[in-house]
Amino acid sequence: MNGSTKPVITLAHGNGGSLMHKLVNDVFVRAFGGTLAANPADSAILEINAGRIAFTTDSHVVTPLFFPGGDIGSLAVNGTVNDLAVMGARPVYLTCGMIIEEGFPVETLERIAASMAASARAAGVSIAAGDTKVVEKGAADGIFINTSGIGVFDGEAMGRAPRGLSSIRPGDAVITSGTIGDHGIAIYAGREGINFETDLKSDCAPVTALTMAAMSASPNIRIMRDPTRGGLATTLGEFAAGQSFGIEIDETRVPVRDDVAGACELLGFDPLYVANEGKIVLIVPSADADSVAAALRKIPIGAGAAIIGRVTGDHAGTVSLRTAVGGHRIVDMLAGDMLPRIC
Amino acid sequence: MNGSTKPVITLAHGNGGSLMHKLVNDVFVRAFGGTLAANPADSAILEINAGRIAFTTDSHVVTPLFFPGGDIGSLAVNGTVNDLAVMGARPVYLTCGMIIEEGFPVETLERIAASMAASARAAGVSIAAGDTKVVEKGAADGIFINTSGIGVFDGEAMGRAPRGLSSIRPGDAVITSGTIGDHGIAIYAGREGINFETDLKSDCAPVTALTMAAMSASPNIRIMRDPTRGGLATTLGEFAAGQSFGIEIDETRVPVRDDVAGACELLGFDPLYVANEGKIVLIVPSADADSVAAALRKIPIGAGAAIIGRVTGDHAGTVSLRTAVGGHRIVDMLAGDMLPRIC
Repeated sequence: MNGSTKPVITLAHGNGGSLMHKLVNDVFVRAFGGTLAANPADSAILEINAGRIAFTTDSHVVTPLFFPGGDIGSLAVNGTVNDLAVMGARPVYLTCGMIIEEGFPVETLERIAASMAASARAAGVSIAAGDTKVVEKGAADGIFINTSGIGVFDGEAMGRAPRGLSSIRPGDAVITSGTIGDHGIAIYAGREGINFETDLKSDCAPVTALTMAAMSASPNIRIMRDPTRGGLATTLGEFAAGQSFGIEIDETRVPVRDDVAGACELLGFDPLYVANEGKIVLIVPSADADSVAAALRKIPIGAGAAIIGRVTGDHAGTVSLRTAVGGHRIVDMLAGDMLPRIC
Repeated sequence: MNGSTKPVITLAHGNGGSLMHKLVNDVFVRAFGGTLAANPADSAILEINAGRIAFTTDSHVVTPLFFPGGDIGSLAVNGTVNDLAVMGARPVYLTCGMIIEEGFPVETLERIAASMAASARAAGVSIAAGDTKVVEKGAADGIFINTSGIGVFDGEAMGRAPRGLSSIRPGDAVITSGTIGDHGIAIYAGREGINFETDLKSDCAPVTALTMAAMSASPNIRIMRDPTRGGLATTLGEFAAGQSFGIEIDETRVPVRDDVAGACELLGFDPLYVANEGKIVLIVPSADADSVAAALRKIPIGAGAAIIGRVTGDHAGTVSLRTAVGGHRIVDMLAGDMLPRIC
C-alpha cells in the first residue's frame, strides 16, 4: 500500500469547472490574497491615480524552475516589475497567467505561488488577476508563467521619467548598477549541476529602488534598461542601433565577479552577453554621473554601481569596447545560440 | 536538391539578440503596427483617460491552432477583449506574450499574427507590448499565446458598469445573447476531423458591441459574463455559489443549434457545459429584460438573444434546470474532464 501519493495537476484543473475553482482558491487566492481575492471576476477593477501608465508583458520558461537565488516565481514577478521600473514608472499591479503540464505536483505549484507572493510583497505590487491553463503531459515542460504589469507615474516618477533615446548626447555617461552575468551563470550552474564552490547566485530582484534613486539623483536620466536576455552588450546595442551616436565601454570598468568571469572563460561565454535579472544600465548626462552612481551605491543591490563608459560622436550606431590591453573591438548584439530558457 | 525549405523558429529567435529583434520587427511590429511600433521599449507608455480600469490576463493553448470560425490568434484577442467587456469596460490595449516551440514554421506565425492584428482592429484595441520566448522542440506544443488587457470606463461604460453579484435580486431575468456550445463543438470537430455537413463554426468574436448595447438599454445590469470554459452552466454556477438566491433556467428556452445538440447527444456532452467564445450571459432586472434582449438582437452576433430563466429566492446557492418534460434538476459547475485545450 502506498499512502504517500502526492496530488498532481490534472486536465480537469484547467477546464474552468469546480476543480479549477478549488485550485485557484486553495493555491493562488490563498497565496496572493488582497486584490485578487477582492476581484473574483475575470478582470480586476482597479483605481489608477494617473493618466499615464506603463504596460508590459513577459512570459517565463526558465529551466530549472528553482535555481540559486530564485525560482520561476520570483523571476516572473521581478522580470515584469523591472520592465516597468526602467521606464521610470512605479510598478503597481501584475497579472499571472499559468500554463501547467498535466502531472505537475501541486506542492511545487504552491512553492512557486508562495515565491510569487513574497516577491510581489517585496516589490510593492499586487497580483490583481490570473488565469490557469492545463495541457496534456508532454505538451509543455512543467510550467510556464506569464506576468503582465501596470506601472504608474506619480511621486518622483511623475516628472523625472527618462526621456528616451532621442535625449542621448555625446559625452553622456553609461552606468551599470553592479556586476554582470550573475543570473545567466547561476542558471547554467543550476541546470548542469555545477557547483562553483562560491556563493554565486542569480541577482534576481526588483530594481525599483535603483530606478527611483537614480531619478532622485538626476532630473535628466536619458534612458534606463534591465539587461536581461542578451546581456549588457545587447542592451547597449539596442540603444545605439540606428542612432547618430556611438557607445564606448571600458572593459576594465565593467564589474564582473571572479567566479562568473572564470565560468565564462571555461564555458566560452562572454559575460557582456550573459543575462542579468536585478541590474540596470543607465545613460545620464556626464555632470550627473557621479551623483547617480553614488545614489545607486546606497541601495544594497546597487553597491557595485560603476561608470563603465560614455556616449561618443564617433562610430555612430555601434558599441565599441576598449579592451584591457588597450585595443578596441565592436560589440554586436547577441547573434547565435547561447543559453536558451534563461528566463 | 531541396530548394523549398521553409523558415522555422529557432532557439536563437528567443535569446534576446539580433535574430529576435528581426523576428519581432518582421512579424509582430509589421502586423500589429501603431502602438507597438511607437513603443519599442520593454513597456508601452500609454495615456489612459480614466481613473478606473479593468485589467485581465488569459493564456491560450487551443488545439488545433486553426479551426472553423477562428484560430489561436483571434481567440487570444477576443478572449481577453471579452473578459474586459463583460465588466462593462471598453477594451483599449492588449499585450501579447508568445511561447513558441523550436521548429515552428515562420509562415504559420505570420498567419497567426495577421489574424491577431485583424481581430484587434475589429475589436477596437491596440496591441501595445509583446514578448517572445522560444523553447526546445518537445518542450511546448507549437505555440501558446498569452494576452493581457486593459479596459477603461468612459462613455456609456462610465456610469452603467454592472454592479456585480451583490446587486442581484429574486425576480431578475437571465439572458443569453445567442446559441450555446458552438465554439466547443467546432473545436472538437476541427480536432477530430469530423465534418458535420453543416456550417457550424466557432462563435469566436468580440462581445463589446453586445455589452455596450445592453448597458445602453438598461442602467441596472446586475452582472455580465462570457461563458467560456465550463460553459453556461459553470458561469451560472459561479453567479449562484454561496449567494442567498438561486437561479432557475428553462431548458426549452436555452438556444442550441440543431447540429450542436446532435453532436452533444452523439458525444455524450451537455451543451450547457460546452465553451462559447462570442456569447454573453446577463442578469438584469425583470422590468428591463425585454428591452435588453431587444437591444442585443439588433447586433448581428446577438440575433439569437433569449430570456432563459430567472433568479429565485428558492434553492439558494444553486442553479436549477426546468427540463423540457417539466422536471427539475440541479446543475452543478463542470466537475470532471471534458474537452481540454478548448481555448
